[in-house]
Amino acid sequence: MLKADEVKITKVILKSSFEMWLSNIEVDVVIVGAGPSGLTCGRYLAKNGYKTLILERHLAFGGGTWGGGMGFPYIVIEPPANEILEECGVKLKEMEGYYVADSVEVPAKLACKAIDDGAKILTGVVVEDLIVRDHEVNGVVINSYAIERAGLHIDPLAIKSKVVVDATGHEANVVNILIRKNKLKLNLEGERSMWAEKGENELLENTKEVYPNLFVCGMAANAVFGGHRMGAIFGGMYLSGKKCAELIMEKLKL
Amino acid sequence: MLKADEVKITKVILKSSFEMWLSNIEVDVVIVGAGPSGLTCGRYLAKNGYKTLILERHLAFGGGTWGGGMGFPYIVIEPPANEILEECGVKLKEMEGYYVADSVEVPAKLACKAIDDGAKILTGVVVEDLIVRDHEVNGVVINSYAIERAGLHIDPLAIKSKVVVDATGHEANVVNILIRKNKLKLNLEGERSMWAEKGENELLENTKEVYPNLFVCGMAANAVFGGHRMGAIFGGMYLSGKKCAELIMEKLKL
Amino acid sequence: MLKADEVKITKVILKSSFEMWLSNIEVDVVIVGAGPSGLTCGRYLAKNGYKTLILERHLAFGGGTWGGGMGFPYIVIEPPANEILEECGVKLKEMEGYYVADSVEVPAKLACKAIDDGAKILTGVVVEDLIVRDHEVNGVVINSYAIERAGLHIDPLAIKSKVVVDATGHEANVVNILIRKNKLKLNLEGERSMWAEKGENELLENTKEVYPNLFVCGMAANAVFGGHRMGAIFGGMYLSGKKCAELIMEKLKL
Amino acid sequence: MLKADEVKITKVILKSSFEMWLSNIEVDVVIVGAGPSGLTCGRYLAKNGYKTLILERHLAFGGGTWGGGMGFPYIVIEPPANEILEECGVKLKEMEGYYVADSVEVPAKLACKAIDDGAKILTGVVVEDLIVRDHEVNGVVINSYAIERAGLHIDPLAIKSKVVVDATGHEANVVNILIRKNKLKLNLEGERSMWAEKGENELLENTKEVYPNLFVCGMAANAVFGGHRMGAIFGGMYLSGKKCAELIMEKLKL
Amino acid sequence: MLKADEVKITKVILKSSFEMWLSNIEVDVVIVGAGPSGLTCGRYLAKNGYKTLILERHLAFGGGTWGGGMGFPYIVIEPPANEILEECGVKLKEMEGYYVADSVEVPAKLACKAIDDGAKILTGVVVEDLIVRDHEVNGVVINSYAIERAGLHIDPLAIKSKVVVDATGHEANVVNILIRKNKLKLNLEGERSMWAEKGENELLENTKEVYPNLFVCGMAANAVFGGHRMGAIFGGMYLSGKKCAELIMEKLKL
Amino acid sequence: MLKADEVKITKVILKSSFEMWLSNIEVDVVIVGAGPSGLTCGRYLAKNGYKTLILERHLAFGGGTWGGGMGFPYIVIEPPANEILEECGVKLKEMEGYYVADSVEVPAKLACKAIDDGAKILTGVVVEDLIVRDHEVNGVVINSYAIERAGLHIDPLAIKSKVVVDATGHEANVVNILIRKNKLKLNLEGERSMWAEKGENELLENTKEVYPNLFVCGMAANAVFGGHRMGAIFGGMYLSGKKCAELIMEKLKL
Amino acid sequence: MLKADEVKITKVILKSSFEMWLSNIEVDVVIVGAGPSGLTCGRYLAKNGYKTLILERHLAFGGGTWGGGMGFPYIVIEPPANEILEECGVKLKEMEGYYVADSVEVPAKLACKAIDDGAKILTGVVVEDLIVRDHEVNGVVINSYAIERAGLHIDPLAIKSKVVVDATGHEANVVNILIRKNKLKLNLEGERSMWAEKGENELLENTKEVYPNLFVCGMAANAVFGGHRMGAIFGGMYLSGKKCAELIMEKLKL
Amino acid sequence: MLKADEVKITKVILKSSFEMWLSNIEVDVVIVGAGPSGLTCGRYLAKNGYKTLILERHLAFGGGTWGGGMGFPYIVIEPPANEILEECGVKLKEMEGYYVADSVEVPAKLACKAIDDGAKILTGVVVEDLIVRDHEVNGVVINSYAIERAGLHIDPLAIKSKVVVDATGHEANVVNILIRKNKLKLNLEGERSMWAEKGENELLENTKEVYPNLFVCGMAANAVFGGHRMGAIFGGMYLSGKKCAELIMEKLKL
Repeated sequence: MLKADEVKITKVILKSSFEMWLSNIEVDVVIVGAGPSGLTCGRYLAKNGYKTLILERHLAFGGGTWGGGMGFPYIVIEPPANEILEECGVKLKEMEGYYVADSVEVPAKLACKAIDDGAKILTGVVVEDLIVRDHEVNGVVINSYAIERAGLHIDPLAIKSKVVVDATGHEANVVNILIRKNKLKLNLEGERSMWAEKGENELLENTKEVYPNLFVCGMAANAVFGGHRMGAIFGGMYLSGKKCAELIMEKLKL
Repeated sequence: MLKADEVKITKVILKSSFEMWLSNIEVDVVIVGAGPSGLTCGRYLAKNGYKTLILERHLAFGGGTWGGGMGFPYIVIEPPANEILEECGVKLKEMEGYYVADSVEVPAKLACKAIDDGAKILTGVVVEDLIVRDHEVNGVVINSYAIERAGLHIDPLAIKSKVVVDATGHEANVVNILIRKNKLKLNLEGERSMWAEKGENELLENTKEVYPNLFVCGMAANAVFGGHRMGAIFGGMYLSGKKCAELIMEKLKL
Repeated sequence: MLKADEVKITKVILKSSFEMWLSNIEVDVVIVGAGPSGLTCGRYLAKNGYKTLILERHLAFGGGTWGGGMGFPYIVIEPPANEILEECGVKLKEMEGYYVADSVEVPAKLACKAIDDGAKILTGVVVEDLIVRDHEVNGVVINSYAIERAGLHIDPLAIKSKVVVDATGHEANVVNILIRKNKLKLNLEGERSMWAEKGENELLENTKEVYPNLFVCGMAANAVFGGHRMGAIFGGMYLSGKKCAELIMEKLKL
Repeated sequence: MLKADEVKITKVILKSSFEMWLSNIEVDVVIVGAGPSGLTCGRYLAKNGYKTLILERHLAFGGGTWGGGMGFPYIVIEPPANEILEECGVKLKEMEGYYVADSVEVPAKLACKAIDDGAKILTGVVVEDLIVRDHEVNGVVINSYAIERAGLHIDPLAIKSKVVVDATGHEANVVNILIRKNKLKLNLEGERSMWAEKGENELLENTKEVYPNLFVCGMAANAVFGGHRMGAIFGGMYLSGKKCAELIMEKLKL
Repeated sequence: MLKADEVKITKVILKSSFEMWLSNIEVDVVIVGAGPSGLTCGRYLAKNGYKTLILERHLAFGGGTWGGGMGFPYIVIEPPANEILEECGVKLKEMEGYYVADSVEVPAKLACKAIDDGAKILTGVVVEDLIVRDHEVNGVVINSYAIERAGLHIDPLAIKSKVVVDATGHEANVVNILIRKNKLKLNLEGERSMWAEKGENELLENTKEVYPNLFVCGMAANAVFGGHRMGAIFGGMYLSGKKCAELIMEKLKL
Repeated sequence: MLKADEVKITKVILKSSFEMWLSNIEVDVVIVGAGPSGLTCGRYLAKNGYKTLILERHLAFGGGTWGGGMGFPYIVIEPPANEILEECGVKLKEMEGYYVADSVEVPAKLACKAIDDGAKILTGVVVEDLIVRDHEVNGVVINSYAIERAGLHIDPLAIKSKVVVDATGHEANVVNILIRKNKLKLNLEGERSMWAEKGENELLENTKEVYPNLFVCGMAANAVFGGHRMGAIFGGMYLSGKKCAELIMEKLKL
Repeated sequence: MLKADEVKITKVILKSSFEMWLSNIEVDVVIVGAGPSGLTCGRYLAKNGYKTLILERHLAFGGGTWGGGMGFPYIVIEPPANEILEECGVKLKEMEGYYVADSVEVPAKLACKAIDDGAKILTGVVVEDLIVRDHEVNGVVINSYAIERAGLHIDPLAIKSKVVVDATGHEANVVNILIRKNKLKLNLEGERSMWAEKGENELLENTKEVYPNLFVCGMAANAVFGGHRMGAIFGGMYLSGKKCAELIMEKLKL
Repeated sequence: MLKADEVKITKVILKSSFEMWLSNIEVDVVIVGAGPSGLTCGRYLAKNGYKTLILERHLAFGGGTWGGGMGFPYIVIEPPANEILEECGVKLKEMEGYYVADSVEVPAKLACKAIDDGAKILTGVVVEDLIVRDHEVNGVVINSYAIERAGLHIDPLAIKSKVVVDATGHEANVVNILIRKNKLKLNLEGERSMWAEKGENELLENTKEVYPNLFVCGMAANAVFGGHRMGAIFGGMYLSGKKCAELIMEKLKL
């Protein structure tokens, strides 16, 4: 017979949560956005021993991958990005020089790999501001997605980190906040019309540190620097996440 | 340099999708709902060679697991259900005679295992009716979640299956539809107030075939038969999914 | 050089509308709903000399045809219903014993044929009640769709007719109003779960006069009598519309 | 007795859709908007052998024609535009030097003629971006209207074409996207207050190629160049659609 | 016994409406807004023989008068504006050098007087644009409020007039449209913070012809020229309406 | 120069409001609804010396009259109801044995007459309950329409009266509240489908005291007793209001 | 100079919350609703040494007191209830045999007194179910108000208690849940129309244990047993809260 | 037996409200916002004999304090601000050099103290404009929150005061209105990203008179001058409210 005691269930959940919260108030890297580039970036950082916290607004990770292209549930990956997915155990099928993957399998496998490599993914958490001190980013200011969506007026908490990554996709939310709240000269270009090939390559160039301790990767990188849009091809996203991890590791030299 | 051609990307996605659709018009089992019990049920069926299609309304799988208990991101599992999660690679921590798991890791690992064992998970798909023929369920009537949510008036398509599983949770949507559309005597009790221990055990008893070719598992089982509610303890859910798979395999005797 | 005078444009539109309205206050038949069965029914009646007014709530005719099946833009027709579409000039393609048609071409062609055969289609008009006198339907009570949708509280106007047809589809709006407003014993069964073949054949049986001077056709017929649902196969719809026209002509014996 | 098999219905619809999609990934001309000018433009192009795809956001074609003027269901046409409608079989009535037409008959007949002349009309499809390569438009980036309206975050697909036509009416959506996403100097004037006669004539002058491979016709042309508004007179719209087709044919010289 | 025939009721309403519409396609003055200044302006014009049409967006006239001050149902009038209300039969009570009036009686009496003096008030009609020809206003472009509020995309009709009056209150809608649609240099200042006494006197100075054939009165006048806000004192409103009528009569010299 | 002092304006409005409120806490008759029957009923009662308070939910009086029939701005009156409107100064035009009136003039004139005859009309006030004592209605429980519409949870106030009249139209709100809150046997029939002539005559029969001290008039009378609907003919409404006043005067015998 | 460290602020808040949560998983009494009766009941219980947790859905306590009567910010109290408020330090003014109090001061003072007497008020917490075991209430099932309002699908937590009090006002939410989820015979009468005096006295009679370990007080008591409504007089509410505390203390005999 | 008479209850509430309103039309100081700084500022002013009116948009006071940090119901205070809370009777707990307080107790105690010291708190009142005369603020223009939220178009009333305080938090509503309505050069900086320590100290510097007779305190001060954000530490808020009171007293020198 199964055992279940309401008070113990409540207690065990509360205790686990508070331990987790307390152990994540200060981390090496906060990645904002658990989409393709954020998960990839987080996985490589965690694997190399960096304390990495991935914050995602929605309850589920995966970002814009789930619906594939226009609701047709597949995404396309070009070499050499297939290697990143293969490391995660994603089944790929070769077609016309590209690789195709199931749009539901991909986020599941990327997340599992990131978790197994040591990254902590916390969902339902909104980054509504940054900690900025003497022109350096020092962490993020967070709130609950439920509170934001409910329209309640409640103060945030803060998490310190050595580096913050904006992996929020097309909207580049973190860079946006930084600019708007601090009147920076930094210009947010916005992504340009679709040119898949050019966009994929620009993505890698645009993956960089845009402000002391603030990096961008994934579509946020092209949105910040005015790169082209690519559509349902995701190779550049994974490579950008990986490159971002490498740049951060170089900077932090653990 | 990365290669990317818009026409090829579009073609590859369309082709993959149509092949997938055509190969899933007739299956052995359709499971409605990709939450804890649906994913578990699907995994055991697929592993044993049954062609299994898991349909989920939302774009992401996982159901009500993501938010843990009241937003505290952990869930509780009692023995012997921990074994099911351990088979999937979920990291469990023992506390006060229970196991605690990260509410984000659990759905990711369950889904990966189900996929690797051969189940097909299709998200963004709504089951709006059943195929019922001479008092037997013969399949499901589906539409796109985007269409439903957009409020567009568009006809559905149909998928044939030998068995359908209602794993839609508290609302027991599939059983609800069956009763409402066919004026059945079958009574939908609705779940009762919380009594965690009793609810967990009732769950297993209530996991059964409720109408020719229609099975219920997970919270839908307690909702149909008036079992008690349990809260953020999930052991019964996984065991119910597993038991449901066993009952179906017995019936279909592949 | 093109000529255009604002006052004349306004005058010409007002005058044309006025004439149309006055000439349609009393008609032989009002058909409610310009979907597949309503358009077909109207076309046969008008062709045989009956003054026929088709009222449609939305601005466009076509009902649920536009989106095909689940947004895949094709519909299926079984013989002998293909003949009705061929008379309208719809291009059909034979596949596996059925006919397939473009879900955009079909409503366009059906409407053109109905108009050319003499039916008047008036869109953006809501039927919010019936004229009922001594247990006989004598016409419809109409309002503007814009007024209804805007939530304004404005009185309706009325149109007299010898016969009213409920071709409003799944909801059987007209029969619903009749029952609700007049406390009739008449039972509204609601359509049953999908059984395409049975549903198609029931549709023809259920096409009939349900109350003195009130006929049902199309899905409204199955909704009233509890017939089965069919999905994206439309043959029964066209045949139902045609049969309904025949029954009315028999009754009215022009 | 009517035959209907759920699996075959589903299969036939999926197969037809797949063939249609694959055969429309690359076309000569994509026209955005199936209103008066888009349908007219598409009809002339298709008739002359150009592979033409008309994309419409809503499920029904017809744009702003359905409601006539202020809901009075008639529209006005001035010579010589009446000839275009007469070719389509629209019944016109002469009044005070103008022609009046039923606002429901017009879109039906225009669409039927375009379809019969070979144009493909695909509805429920949103153009959310363009393919732009080295300062030339090379196609459109599309998504499902249901997805857009449901507010789901799903990546688009792309269609290549030699030419794109913005026939989206007052909002000139395509030109708008081009400018906003590519920071063009091109100025979007917006239509000016009503001056029916001047507006009708400006419409024809403004119908042109506004950017390499991007043409505008209908109200979008006046919106782009700041022409005057005309109200419920549509002659200029049909003539603009026709002129646009002629300019494109001259450019593409099939 | 009372007599009532549905067809005759419908016919009589349609006939009366079309006669009214046709006789109002061309008028001397169109006043936009049936609030305090619009009704007063219309009354004086009509009394002096000018064909005057007052158009009001809402179904009821009265504008912002109904709720008095902050929902306390009284308004204040200072001399000599009391004479205008006394001419209309409004009961006034003297208090501390001012007059107080019932906020429900005032709009009723103003409207009755305007109607009895010959003005036509048409409610539920939205002015969405102007007819502008060679830098002169020549009339208004109207639509139904129901259509606007329902969000339907339907073309407008037009009414010609020698003069148009913007009496739309704080938003100065008509002047706004004129500026936005015609890129005028005319600056819309917006009303300033409250200074009741100054605002009341500025109101009269600001009542004038702001563009050939376009006059402003009431709060629209202060909104256009940046006058101060006054609150629940209405004397200036009635005097502004009267002055506006005098300026128009001087210009039109009937 | 005009004088205006903010403090005095505020003070004068507050004082007038509080005097009005205090003098209306106890009245002879409360009429709920300022539509055609409520205004007529109130006018006759006030004229005969009964302290009469008319409460209206919306800010403007007039109920469903403003929009005429389907937005065509005229209403129809049959003899002898024309006399009631003529007493109020409404201009009537004879057509086909009926009288036609402007749908904007009618509410304005009815309200002015009721006010001049001594009735107090208070708008923006919702009746959310009744005072019921020993099976007798003793008054109404009111709240502000703004509070109701804003969804705020605020307690009501109460007004005592010897008689309450439900003149709320189709919904018969007051009778509805009485039944729902007190589990009465009284049956609310709901109005029946349209039969204009029968409905007009039933209206007068149904105008009566339905519960000790609670009367119904206008469409509420037909809604309570299941009378027929009439459409845009209003003669019965005015006669019902007048009859209701006569019945109340007989009961109260001032 | 002020000191402030983000990490410490976050840590201190988390730790305090964790301790509070853990110490409130099991309490003597859970009171649902922090309105007038809930706060009064909680204060007396806490003062007498019972561990008392008051849960409130909204972020602020006070329930329906804030807006006074119809937005006029005062409430009325009859003797002897004034003593309860005087104990809390509320300033009362005698008028016509009653006491009047400021509708903002009252909730503030009641809450302060309850807190100072030892009750814990937790706001933003929703009770969505009860723990029911062998026909006895054993606690409450809670969730976050933000989660409920955001419409997120997240499991609840549970709190054990010896007694639960339904002080949720007019809707009697807790009793409602108990009945609906457990198919009890218990009948929820709903409050009756206003009869202030009778209602006040019934309130005290209806304050009782309605199901093993579940008590009702305040308006919930009248809603459960069909007592009369009272309006903006609150004496009965405070007395009911006090009586409820006394009944509970008698039962629990600490 | 409890006594309760509906008419007397209504009368007593109306009379109390009337007296309160009339005695608050002219005051020394109007404070806009009843959050932490507004309540503190009001308390010190009232205590020193200044007639002080605190206006709050919501029905409850407390502003953003209720939810603590991210819904964890505690706030942090640094010395020496603890003294202000201790004066109000708030229980503080020392932790890591800071003080922690219950986020529900704090607003309750602050409000009680402000009320007991003589401040009048009026909730549900919106400040929608200012009285500005010759470049000096002379009072506020108010409306009902219910009216604003209901979207009703109703004129405001006005309250005169020698000084107005903007204590509206992050949005600095009052300063915003002043600038927007009067085209001032005054620049509204908006708060900067989080730097808790710097923000706390800037808050005190930024607390000042920003325009003749208009002061800012609390977060509004940092929003106006571009100070940094602090999160859930509130010491600066209370000190700012106190400093603001001191500056005003110095200016007004009662």
